[in-house]
Amino acid sequence: MENDFVKEITPKTEDFSQWYVDVILKAELADYSPVRGCMVIRPYGYALWENIQQLLDDRFKATGHKNAYFPLFIPESLLQKEAEHVEGFAPEVAWVTHGGNEKLAERLAVRPTSETIICNMYSKWIKSWRDLPVLINQWCNVVRWEKSTKPFLRTAEFLWQEGHTAHRTKEDAEEEALRMLEVYRDFVETDLALPVIKGEKSDNEKFAGASKTYTIEALMSDGRALQAGTSHNLGQHFAKAYDITFLDQDGQLKYVWQTSWGITTRLIGAIVMVHGDDRGLKIPPTIAPIQAVIVPIFGRQTELVLNKTNEIFTKLKSEVRIELDDRDEYTPGWKFNEWEMRGVPVRIEIGPKDIQRQQVVLVRRDTGEKFTVSESELLPRLKTLLDEIQENMFNQAKRFMRENIRKVDNFDEFKQIIDTKRGFIKTHWCGNPGCEKYVKEETGATLRCIPFSEQSTLGRCIVCNKESNIIAYFAKSY
Amino acid sequence: MENDFVKEITPKTEDFSQWYVDVILKAELADYSPVRGCMVIRPYGYALWENIQQLLDDRFKATGHKNAYFPLFIPESLLQKEAEHVEGFAPEVAWVTHGGNEKLAERLAVRPTSETIICNMYSKWIKSWRDLPVLINQWCNVVRWEKSTKPFLRTAEFLWQEGHTAHRTKEDAEEEALRMLEVYRDFVETDLALPVIKGEKSDNEKFAGASKTYTIEALMSDGRALQAGTSHNLGQHFAKAYDITFLDQDGQLKYVWQTSWGITTRLIGAIVMVHGDDRGLKIPPTIAPIQAVIVPIFGRQTELVLNKTNEIFTKLKSEVRIELDDRDEYTPGWKFNEWEMRGVPVRIEIGPKDIQRQQVVLVRRDTGEKFTVSESELLPRLKTLLDEIQENMFNQAKRFMRENIRKVDNFDEFKQIIDTKRGFIKTHWCGNPGCEKYVKEETGATLRCIPFSEQSTLGRCIVCNKESNIIAYFAKSY
Ligand SMILES: [Zn+2]
Ligand SMILES: [Zn+2]
Repeated sequence: MENDFVKEITPKTEDFSQWYVDVILKAELADYSPVRGCMVIRPYGYALWENIQQLLDDRFKATGHKNAYFPLFIPESLLQKEAEHVEGFAPEVAWVTHGGNEKLAERLAVRPTSETIICNMYSKWIKSWRDLPVLINQWCNVVRWEKSTKPFLRTAEFLWQEGHTAHRTKEDAEEEALRMLEVYRDFVETDLALPVIKGEKSDNEKFAGASKTYTIEALMSDGRALQAGTSHNLGQHFAKAYDITFLDQDGQLKYVWQTSWGITTRLIGAIVMVHGDDRGLKIPPTIAPIQAVIVPIFGRQTELVLNKTNEIFTKLKSEVRIELDDRDEYTPGWKFNEWEMRGVPVRIEIGPKDIQRQQVVLVRRDTGEKFTVSESELLPRLKTLLDEIQENMFNQAKRFMRENIRKVDNFDEFKQIIDTKRGFIKTHWCGNPGCEKYVKEETGATLRCIPFSEQSTLGRCIVCNKESNIIAYFAKSY
Repeated sequence: MENDFVKEITPKTEDFSQWYVDVILKAELADYSPVRGCMVIRPYGYALWENIQQLLDDRFKATGHKNAYFPLFIPESLLQKEAEHVEGFAPEVAWVTHGGNEKLAERLAVRPTSETIICNMYSKWIKSWRDLPVLINQWCNVVRWEKSTKPFLRTAEFLWQEGHTAHRTKEDAEEEALRMLEVYRDFVETDLALPVIKGEKSDNEKFAGASKTYTIEALMSDGRALQAGTSHNLGQHFAKAYDITFLDQDGQLKYVWQTSWGITTRLIGAIVMVHGDDRGLKIPPTIAPIQAVIVPIFGRQTELVLNKTNEIFTKLKSEVRIELDDRDEYTPGWKFNEWEMRGVPVRIEIGPKDIQRQQVVLVRRDTGEKFTVSESELLPRLKTLLDEIQENMFNQAKRFMRENIRKVDNFDEFKQIIDTKRGFIKTHWCGNPGCEKYVKEETGATLRCIPFSEQSTLGRCIVCNKESNIIAYFAKSY
């Protein structure tokens, strides 16, 4: 029976893509819906999103941002004002053409992102240097009509947050864009235990309408990269297209400088892909909807064990996110498997012998390690254990990422690694979009970022052999 | 100058509707957008919504509900499965017909409410009595293509929560519908300080597809009623239309019993209309984004006063939601008016003389009362003051409502009151939809609810004079 349970999940090594979908459906993070390309986020998946929202929102507010809400619909004429932007998004817009029984005079785009409608409002709200900076964030749904879809990673509708800020100077905007990238890095590494590479996108890969796009790139356990968050310095492109000006202290009318930045529900997909294994999910304790589960082992003393597990559950529940699984229709073994599959970081087993010895058994999801702890020590031990698991999960993922960054100077080797091991390939690039495009066409890998952390050294472009001091990370990606 | 400020708001008695819009725009709760019928909720208004969400969400979770997220789009064929439901909503649906450059094979409704898509998923998820009850809530945006719109009260897009539950028995569903109505009443009266009448809707006024609709009805200060929250017992209508069955403990396949319930951003409109006055907003302390504001009165001792106000601000900010208005471009008088207009419950004034006397001045927004308190007593006094203001605001609104419930037995009197004083009219009604319709056509008043609290007594229908023991509340409404 215990093996049956795990059999329902395709082994990760056998078919990574099927494993991913199996885990998501089986753990009830999400489900397919009758609407093409749209998924349902089930309560267990949504609880992850709520924890992500809370932890990020606290950081946004601590850096002076406020939340607001802008319309879902954007008139077509408004969307078209910034040329690069509309070109980037128009092919994937869902269009509302009728309201009730009437045909609309102008089509409305279901927002793919909100720069255009927000800039329209900013041009009304911002008048003086005293109004700056404007630091607004929005939590909402957006729609992009994608051809192929996959739960959390690529869906027609998804949930996200989008920050939109306006500043007095170019320097202020650049500082904000980098500040929010660092907020993302800190959140993703600390709370989601996902190590990332921080860097800048190439012109080819940047956001439609941005001056610069900064990114944090994570590495999935199949060796593909995933863009975990982006922060854009928009320069004055939108300010000029939407006429956002302010009277500066020197009496001059000037255009504002802007940023925008976002993360999405695809982070949940990244958690699954980086931490999960053949038994299912592994959720980092900080964001786990359930941090520990108590499984009573009744033996022949159901009442004794129920009383003790209830007592311990009551004692712990205000301190950790804990559940007591006292269902009588399943065996302990079945429950062990289920909670492992759902990625709960710690299992607490309590049976008659444990009660006699005034102890409980703790089992770690990350390592499988099992040990006893005296009942009186349970709470402090559990708390440090959750911290240890969080740290270990990060370190494991970090080790994997480090082992999968390969310095390559030769295009054949590049191709071979992309075909076999994947991971990040670190190489010199001349800065020419043509060379970047050649790599993509020949290998399927894209330029993920020009990392901040690398010391710039002189080398030769992997494609054209020209001398360059630009180091770039390439990878296949989601 | 101080009068100029107030002049920008139309007096409430002169033009209530204009006053309402003036207050909302001036206090920056919301703004008009370039999209017909859609508004922008600005940070100050959205902070109110965040507080509403937090306070309600805690109550939902305490009653065992979990949040999830279902698709924004609903295929036309799915919407049409429950006949009454589609008839009720089809005229106000916004339709997506194109994705990117392609025409869709089937039109997609932008959700006006989510029963249909959620029932479709429930029919897949629910199999056994062990799966019940299903207690799910969703926080999201919905769209209803309204002809005339007004900020918060009636907009094409609005934000809300919608609870959707499935139960094993008819009794369980009825209990849930009433439980959630009571959650709403408690929240709206305790936290928003809005007194309400709890009751049941007539068949005419109930939700499209429901067996019974329960409601809480608030009374605005212009004498119009506003539906503040509804809870529907859906019976088995949707279960039968969407085939949601379960195998019961007795081995029989049965349809589930369902409820749905919701509140929306229109509650923000109710807060404005019930509590506001000619000077602007009055926000109940429990949900006020800013509970107290410190206004330094510099006199000629700017540094001394700034130091002291900073010191007090730092001391209080972890205990109350407080702001320090140390802007040097405005006079204290200007600031007093601005913070009154924004409805901040308490103003704290601190000048050189106050510092000398180790005191501060407190001013209540609800009564205008002004008094001094010693600096050492400030925090405890401020906390009790916020409670007093909350209570006083509720009591004031409650008194107003009580004074505006009029028992009427004569149709001419009914008409006259609706034309002059408005408020709730309490009268006997025979239960015939024809009589209800007659009232609506002749007076513009609708049957708001059959209240729970009224002892049923025998009387005569206000229209047909038939004997009846049904007491109904009628009013003009938003
Ligand atoms: Zn090159
Ligand atoms: Zn009658």
